[in-house]
Amino acid sequence: LEGVLILSEIRKDLVRDNWVVIATDRAVKPSNLPVPALGSAKKAAGFCPFCEGNEKFTPPEILALRPSDLPSNDTGWSVRVVPNKFSAYGMDTPLIRESVDMYTRQSGFGSHEVVIESPEHDQELHFQPLEKIASVIGVLRDRYLQIAGDERFKFIQIYKNRGLFAGASLSHSHCQIISLPYVPDQFKGAVNYASENSRCLFCDMIELEIRKKERLILETDNFVVVCPYAPRFTYETWILPKNHQENFGELDDSKSLELSQALKKLLVSIVDTLDDPSYNLVVHTAPVNVPHVPGYHWFIEVSPRLIVQSGVEVATGYFMNPISPEWAAETLRKNILNRKD
Amino acid sequence: LEGVLILSEIRKDLVRDNWVVIATDRAVKPSNLPVPALGSAKKAAGFCPFCEGNEKFTPPEILALRPSDLPSNDTGWSVRVVPNKFSAYGMDTPLIRESVDMYTRQSGFGSHEVVIESPEHDQELHFQPLEKIASVIGVLRDRYLQIAGDERFKFIQIYKNRGLFAGASLSHSHCQIISLPYVPDQFKGAVNYASENSRCLFCDMIELEIRKKERLILETDNFVVVCPYAPRFTYETWILPKNHQENFGELDDSKSLELSQALKKLLVSIVDTLDDPSYNLVVHTAPVNVPHVPGYHWFIEVSPRLIVQSGVEVATGYFMNPISPEWAAETLRKNILNRKD
Repeated sequence: LEGVLILSEIRKDLVRDNWVVIATDRAVKPSNLPVPALGSAKKAAGFCPFCEGNEKFTPPEILALRPSDLPSNDTGWSVRVVPNKFSAYGMDTPLIRESVDMYTRQSGFGSHEVVIESPEHDQELHFQPLEKIASVIGVLRDRYLQIAGDERFKFIQIYKNRGLFAGASLSHSHCQIISLPYVPDQFKGAVNYASENSRCLFCDMIELEIRKKERLILETDNFVVVCPYAPRFTYETWILPKNHQENFGELDDSKSLELSQALKKLLVSIVDTLDDPSYNLVVHTAPVNVPHVPGYHWFIEVSPRLIVQSGVEVATGYFMNPISPEWAAETLRKNILNRKD
Repeated sequence: LEGVLILSEIRKDLVRDNWVVIATDRAVKPSNLPVPALGSAKKAAGFCPFCEGNEKFTPPEILALRPSDLPSNDTGWSVRVVPNKFSAYGMDTPLIRESVDMYTRQSGFGSHEVVIESPEHDQELHFQPLEKIASVIGVLRDRYLQIAGDERFKFIQIYKNRGLFAGASLSHSHCQIISLPYVPDQFKGAVNYASENSRCLFCDMIELEIRKKERLILETDNFVVVCPYAPRFTYETWILPKNHQENFGELDDSKSLELSQALKKLLVSIVDTLDDPSYNLVVHTAPVNVPHVPGYHWFIEVSPRLIVQSGVEVATGYFMNPISPEWAAETLRKNILNRKD
């Protein structure tokens, strides 16, 4: 097996009726395995391929915000999008699905991009100025719209890993975008709710949470920030547009600054309250290029990774959360209110 | 909220059509939150409530292997079962399910036991003599049968957390047993397979894996040790009884030593190959006291926790695994073959 690069594949888990990505290419990522090596995710004095000046150590850029008179793949940018060098997916992989004996697998067709949020190594997203956060969100939205234009893609997942316990392998602040030719059915509850009630689950939740207030952290003209009723993660929070929008691509430039302000307030209060935790940020949004029932409503989930999932969660799939969302919301709401900024 | 102990509850996640345990009582467990405090899971010179001589620091024992002339809740035991002091569940909690507004929750009725595998602090399960491993397995099986005799319970989850990245909060080697009045539907694929094919998915997999050999690690008279085709975790392995048995309680004393030998070989080779990793061990078994379709077949899963699940897994529910099970099986198979013991 040594030295042989095996193409990644998506294998059907017959027991759980789910899929697992067997991303054998990624085994070469030195900081990824085993866990102790993840210590390298902490700030290191060593070399960083995402820092300004090291542009030639990433694959050629897909998009960058830099003055138009400057050459690409060089210095002078503020946000930069490049293919993930350790992608589990490839655009050159033909889209194949096959069954051998009783097992089914499909090829690892897809794309995997990295959005480097800043040329400087130590600029965490939550400490950036509002306008900068808005420009990162704008780049994410623009990449989303661009990728959605390719009909081979049915699903686009934007996410961010921050810190050792959130799966980050590089400390230089960045987001990632994975685009796939199939749709995970994580939201089957929301889809069923919409079918049965002819209403959007998220719209109904937003109405209820604004009225009840106990899980409400922040409300602005166009967004609400809440702890969900059944959070999988401790201090899990959601930012949702109040008006029904299926699709992250519908985010209007005029509302981008307002969203950035809500996001910054939330992240700063999480980092402050929870002693600088690892966290994931994910953008949930409707599938693209595929007929789908109503029931989607895009939103941002921020999930601190304070607790390692144990054997009971591995076995049952039920998450255990020692802090109620009412308590978490109260803590974060107070922290935001008490800030001068 | 300070000082108020809120009963734990199981809340319906409407978006994912799943349940989350909001175990607010557990917030008091000092080593549980936040993650950095989990460092205390490593061997510490400090006080350990599971060590011989400290019996009064646990709730009164449920069962213990000790000479019959010695008093209970005192020294002289080899395996000891006690209620979990930081249980998310209570037997005194009435079994209630209620809907408020659009949300549904049920009370945290259930039991949570700890099986302390040894009176000595540093005896890891995989280093114990065979006969001792067999006696731990015997105690787990006996507790399983005892709990299954209580008709209020429909589901019994035996599991073990070993190490920081597997969710362990105490280093003294132990297993846990959670018993619940409802059945998680993690195995819906296996259940559907059995309905559609009138055959057991696991029996078919065992037949195939023995024939194909590429994911087979070890075969004994009554058990197979394999890496599954679609493993969620890197180096995930399963030990299955070759003959169809739904229920862990069916494990015969005459086969307990053979199972212990397979388990010990597997664990030693995992610990050796993967540089002493964190791991979870879970016993998957059929529901009890409830009519259920065929499709279950008990087995032990051992899942090393080498990689932290990142944002894309949090969002999509698809696990990413950088090592193919064929490679993992070859590595473990060779390690077992090369051992003298």
